[in-house]
Amino acid sequence: MPRPDHLQFGALVHGSGGHIAGWRHPRANPDGELDIDFHVRLARTLEDAGFAALFVADVVAIWGHQLDSLHRTTRADYLEPITLLAALSQRTSRIGLVATATTSYNEPYHLARKFASLDHISGGRTGWNVVTSVVPLEAQNFGRAEHFSHEERYERAAEFVDVVKGLWDSYAEDALLRDKAAGRYFRRDGRRAIDHHGKHFDVAGPLNLARPPQGHPVLFQAGASATGRAFAARYGEVIFTSPVSTEAAVTYRRQLDAAVTAAGRDPGDVRVWPLLTPIVADTDAEAAAILADLGSLIHDDVLRRLVQDNFGDEDFSDLDLDEPLPDFGEDTNRSQSRRAGLLALARGERLTLRQLALRFSARADTAGSAATVADRIAEVWATGAVDGFNVSFPYLPEQADRFTAEVLPILAERGLFRPPPDGTLRQRLGLPYPTRQGPR
Amino acid sequence: MPRPDHLQFGALVHGSGGHIAGWRHPRANPDGELDIDFHVRLARTLEDAGFAALFVADVVAIWGHQLDSLHRTTRADYLEPITLLAALSQRTSRIGLVATATTSYNEPYHLARKFASLDHISGGRTGWNVVTSVVPLEAQNFGRAEHFSHEERYERAAEFVDVVKGLWDSYAEDALLRDKAAGRYFRRDGRRAIDHHGKHFDVAGPLNLARPPQGHPVLFQAGASATGRAFAARYGEVIFTSPVSTEAAVTYRRQLDAAVTAAGRDPGDVRVWPLLTPIVADTDAEAAAILADLGSLIHDDVLRRLVQDNFGDEDFSDLDLDEPLPDFGEDTNRSQSRRAGLLALARGERLTLRQLALRFSARADTAGSAATVADRIAEVWATGAVDGFNVSFPYLPEQADRFTAEVLPILAERGLFRPPPDGTLRQRLGLPYPTRQGPR
Repeated sequence: MPRPDHLQFGALVHGSGGHIAGWRHPRANPDGELDIDFHVRLARTLEDAGFAALFVADVVAIWGHQLDSLHRTTRADYLEPITLLAALSQRTSRIGLVATATTSYNEPYHLARKFASLDHISGGRTGWNVVTSVVPLEAQNFGRAEHFSHEERYERAAEFVDVVKGLWDSYAEDALLRDKAAGRYFRRDGRRAIDHHGKHFDVAGPLNLARPPQGHPVLFQAGASATGRAFAARYGEVIFTSPVSTEAAVTYRRQLDAAVTAAGRDPGDVRVWPLLTPIVADTDAEAAAILADLGSLIHDDVLRRLVQDNFGDEDFSDLDLDEPLPDFGEDTNRSQSRRAGLLALARGERLTLRQLALRFSARADTAGSAATVADRIAEVWATGAVDGFNVSFPYLPEQADRFTAEVLPILAERGLFRPPPDGTLRQRLGLPYPTRQGPR
Repeated sequence: MPRPDHLQFGALVHGSGGHIAGWRHPRANPDGELDIDFHVRLARTLEDAGFAALFVADVVAIWGHQLDSLHRTTRADYLEPITLLAALSQRTSRIGLVATATTSYNEPYHLARKFASLDHISGGRTGWNVVTSVVPLEAQNFGRAEHFSHEERYERAAEFVDVVKGLWDSYAEDALLRDKAAGRYFRRDGRRAIDHHGKHFDVAGPLNLARPPQGHPVLFQAGASATGRAFAARYGEVIFTSPVSTEAAVTYRRQLDAAVTAAGRDPGDVRVWPLLTPIVADTDAEAAAILADLGSLIHDDVLRRLVQDNFGDEDFSDLDLDEPLPDFGEDTNRSQSRRAGLLALARGERLTLRQLALRFSARADTAGSAATVADRIAEVWATGAVDGFNVSFPYLPEQADRFTAEVLPILAERGLFRPPPDGTLRQRLGLPYPTRQGPR
């Protein structure tokens, strides 16, 4: 399929904002995480403004390896994504609903079924953000002392996604006859078991549910390591990437397109959405002041943990926040891309622990007036290397309100953005309908 | 808590009806299973009439051991219950939402989280119907060649429920401060891990979510075997039972109350709802005719499977439908209560396979005019041995419409029924709020 000729927007939604101290902002709603009406209001704001999708992150544990600073954040109190999105499906009508779910601590039959159910209930608006888990505590909630190794979890993820796709293909599109007179609910030869017997999973099938309206819910992916990129090239339909310079965006896209082609797919069937964390204010100076305020609302313990949680077993509690980060070595078993990225950043600019924390985990990458934020978006779009943005608002609801009311109209006026056409999420993103395949 | 002084009603909902051929009835909606608007209409009908809860059955596979007759039924095409109920939570406001979920092929952390999320989203209207799975195909969708043995799955279920309750108790009710000024989202000493290490599960916790509004979602249970009854006495708050004679109802209640007391609980904290499968028509004769019509809509292959699926490995395909059932022996590993019940029924009355199938699996136990159906309900209620009924409508929407519009008003007029008070599902059923306990 051709790549889109207008910007696409997805939103990473949280109850009170994506910034670690966003919930403490004077205009944030600190009760938003569990407040379904708050989520509905946010979803409708995004839908009405032409966001193609909203996306919910997830960790099947409290976030962060260490617990002692979590009581200063919202990261230990949030709704299960598919349950939340099923609720939102009934109070929205067009926006895509994308849930994160891990392949490391789930069963393919359950996930295939839940996403298919959500796709039926929402009229084809579902996406699955495939992750392999990064927080060691997840393992301990599911009977394992240690997380799977990096390679093992991607191997498991590939088998998992193959099984899920096979289960979604259990019924042919036209198999459900529901023919009262003949007494035939479905065509017997229109359904098949998958009888999968692999290294990680044994799943007989078939799924107990008609094929989803989209054929398959849209697959989102965000792997940044070499293994993660290979996985994305093979399976990803929308790729979340880190915020990048325009040069890096072009290089990334060239490499991705080559990898997608090598995987036997059409690069036009993949969308790339870098993360955007905007702060919109009346002036650039005001936006910078908001960002500084947010930084100052982060407790020292939290700053320390923000960095430590992306490392291995090193203990940061005695490190001085205002000294440069010590030069730690490699760790082969942790989330390598994050750790390596942090180490490179710290080494390259001789950052202190505090600076590193603020830069890496507590950023808002694009703070300014609406015009400034629109300019930055237009600049990245002009590279031709991205298809849209995955927007995470540092605090809510104000920043979602301002972005939709002030930034999107500027982009529309410049001819860069228009709300996507009606249809399923897959249609709105210009992605192809998957033909039914797999074992007969 | 005192037992209720008025009848309580829950409904077992299906898209097109609970009778195996209900979807083929001329006034049934054959597309109802996946049609969310149809489910909403049904839920609102029940809610407006004063049903305390609706309940969704579940099997994590296509239903029935054998596949060859399933294409004549709706039992291979239905939504995942929690996803469905999360959607219904946004289009109803009072009715309880009870999902079936198996302890044999789930992880406690996932289920604790999903039910807690649904309880938050629905404002405290959630219940969990705890089952241990009966269909061998479920095992094969989750990496096992064989289902767990009967004893093993109840042992696993007990540990599972203990872990889930512990996870629901992760946070104290008043632990979530969300105090912007102090920068404290929760009280650190108001949360605890469970660090469970048992025979079947190792779960660290804590849950990543505030305590559910009900403390714990209400636990429903339907075990009929000796082990199942012991489990119900220990954990069940609403017990689904088979339809029974008035004498059997009294005996059952006496035994249950004794078992509940022996388990250290107050018998007043348990509700008993026998199954009721009503057909309401203008006259008793008309209702009988509808029942006969439904029976005639069942294909011979389906009749055979209805019985066989509750047996073990015996092959019924060569058995004559109109000969008495052969005298099969015992099987220690299957769902014993169902098998034993069928064998006793067949032996006692020398039933043919066809008669047995129609009696056991394709029944409507109470067919008649609205007055007849109300009389039967009043008769069972007068024993003092039940608290309400779990109503399964043979075909939908007509039978739900008639029951709510015609039967409930008669019961209300006789002073036996009134809509439950507002509040959480737990409050509406008169069940106690569980104090937080478990490991500190």
